[in-house]
Amino acid sequence: MTPKRKAKFERTVAHRQFDLTVILENVHDHHNIGAVLRSCDSVGIHEIFVLYNEPQLQKEYLELGKRTTAGTRKWLDVHYYTDTEACFSAVRERYDHIYATHLSRSAKSLYDLDLTRRVALMFGNEMLGLSDEAMQHADGNFIIPQMGMAESLNISVACAVSLYEAYRQRELDGAYDPVDLEQPRRAALLEKYFALHESGSNRGKIRRKGSKK
Amino acid sequence: MTPKRKAKFERTVAHRQFDLTVILENVHDHHNIGAVLRSCDSVGIHEIFVLYNEPQLQKEYLELGKRTTAGTRKWLDVHYYTDTEACFSAVRERYDHIYATHLSRSAKSLYDLDLTRRVALMFGNEMLGLSDEAMQHADGNFIIPQMGMAESLNISVACAVSLYEAYRQRELDGAYDPVDLEQPRRAALLEKYFALHESGSNRGKIRRKGSKK
Repeated sequence: MTPKRKAKFERTVAHRQFDLTVILENVHDHHNIGAVLRSCDSVGIHEIFVLYNEPQLQKEYLELGKRTTAGTRKWLDVHYYTDTEACFSAVRERYDHIYATHLSRSAKSLYDLDLTRRVALMFGNEMLGLSDEAMQHADGNFIIPQMGMAESLNISVACAVSLYEAYRQRELDGAYDPVDLEQPRRAALLEKYFALHESGSNRGKIRRKGSKK
Repeated sequence: MTPKRKAKFERTVAHRQFDLTVILENVHDHHNIGAVLRSCDSVGIHEIFVLYNEPQLQKEYLELGKRTTAGTRKWLDVHYYTDTEACFSAVRERYDHIYATHLSRSAKSLYDLDLTRRVALMFGNEMLGLSDEAMQHADGNFIIPQMGMAESLNISVACAVSLYEAYRQRELDGAYDPVDLEQPRRAALLEKYFALHESGSNRGKIRRKGSKK
C-alpha cells in the first residue's frame, strides 16, 4: 500500500460519522442508489439501510444482494432488509431520530432540523414515496424548500442536499475535527479497509493472470 | 388558468433570484443538464448559460437548440453559446463574481463563499472539467468538501449542493421575502409565464384534436 493510499484510508476513517445514516425504502433505480452511496461516503456515512418491503421490488433486492461490492459500495456497509420491523429495530439500536421526506404531511424545512444529533434520514420510492408503514417509524418529516415551478427533486439530488446540510452543521459543531484513530471502533474500521484494499489488490492480480475478463 | 396555477406563477416569480446563475461548459449528458435545470428552478434561478466551446461537442449544442423547450426548461431562459468570450461578456453584464469548480487549483470550501452577492457558479465537462479558457474568467475557485473515499460528485449533485447552499444563505439574508410583483422586471416575467402557459394549453388542445402523437 502506498503512503498516499494509507493516508487516505486514515483520513476517511477519522471523518466517519457513526451517528448519521440513510434509510432507502423501495428505491429501485440502481443509478439512484449508486449516487446516494457516493454522497453518503462523501459526508462520512459508513453504513446505510436499504429496505425492500414491496413484494414487486424484492427481485431487485435479490439482484443487488448477488452483486459483489464495488466502487463506493466497498467502503460502506449496506444493510438489506425485506422486513420493515427488523429494519427499524436495527436502525433504532444506533440512531435516535428518524426524519422522513413525505410531501403530503406537515413538514419542517431541512434547514430547521438539528442534524448534529444521532440521525437517520429516510427517503422513499421514486414514484410512490414512503409507505405508511415506514412513516409510522418516523419522528419527524422534512422538506427541501422548492421556490420554483418544479414540485420535487430527484432522490439522489434530494439526498445529497440533505446530507451536505448535515455536513455543514456538523463541521461547525466540530464533528470532523481530529480524532484518535486508536479508538476501538475506528481502529477496527481502518483494519477492515486495509484488508479490503489487500483483497482487492489480490483479486486484481489473479484476474490479470488467469481470468478472461 | 386556475387560481391555484396563477398563485404558483406569482409565487415563483416573487422568488426568482435575478442575481444568481449557473454556467455549464461542455456538459454533454442531457440528463445532467435536465437535473441542473430542475435544481436551478427550485432555488429561483431564472436564466442559465450553456457554453459549448469544444468543437467535438458542438453537435450536442445544435441538437439541444433544435429541441422545443419542455418541462422545467420552459420556466428558465437557457442561453446557448459556442464562443467563450461572448458567453462571459453576457454573464458579466449581470453578475459580479464568477466562481469555478476546478479540482486542481487552490480552492475555498463552498461554505466559505458569500453566495448572497451577484454570483455565477461555473461547472465543467463530466470528464475534463473546466477549460483553461473558462478558468481565466473565474474570480475564485471552490470545492465541495469530500470526507470519504470518492474523489468527486456527479455534476448534477455538485450543482444542487452548491445551489442549495446559496438558497440557505439567501433565505437567511431575506432574498425570498415578499416582494412587489409590479416591479417592472417581475411583472414582465409573470406576463411571460402567463403567455407560456396559454400557448402550452393551446398546443395541448391542438394536439388532442389533430396530431398523431
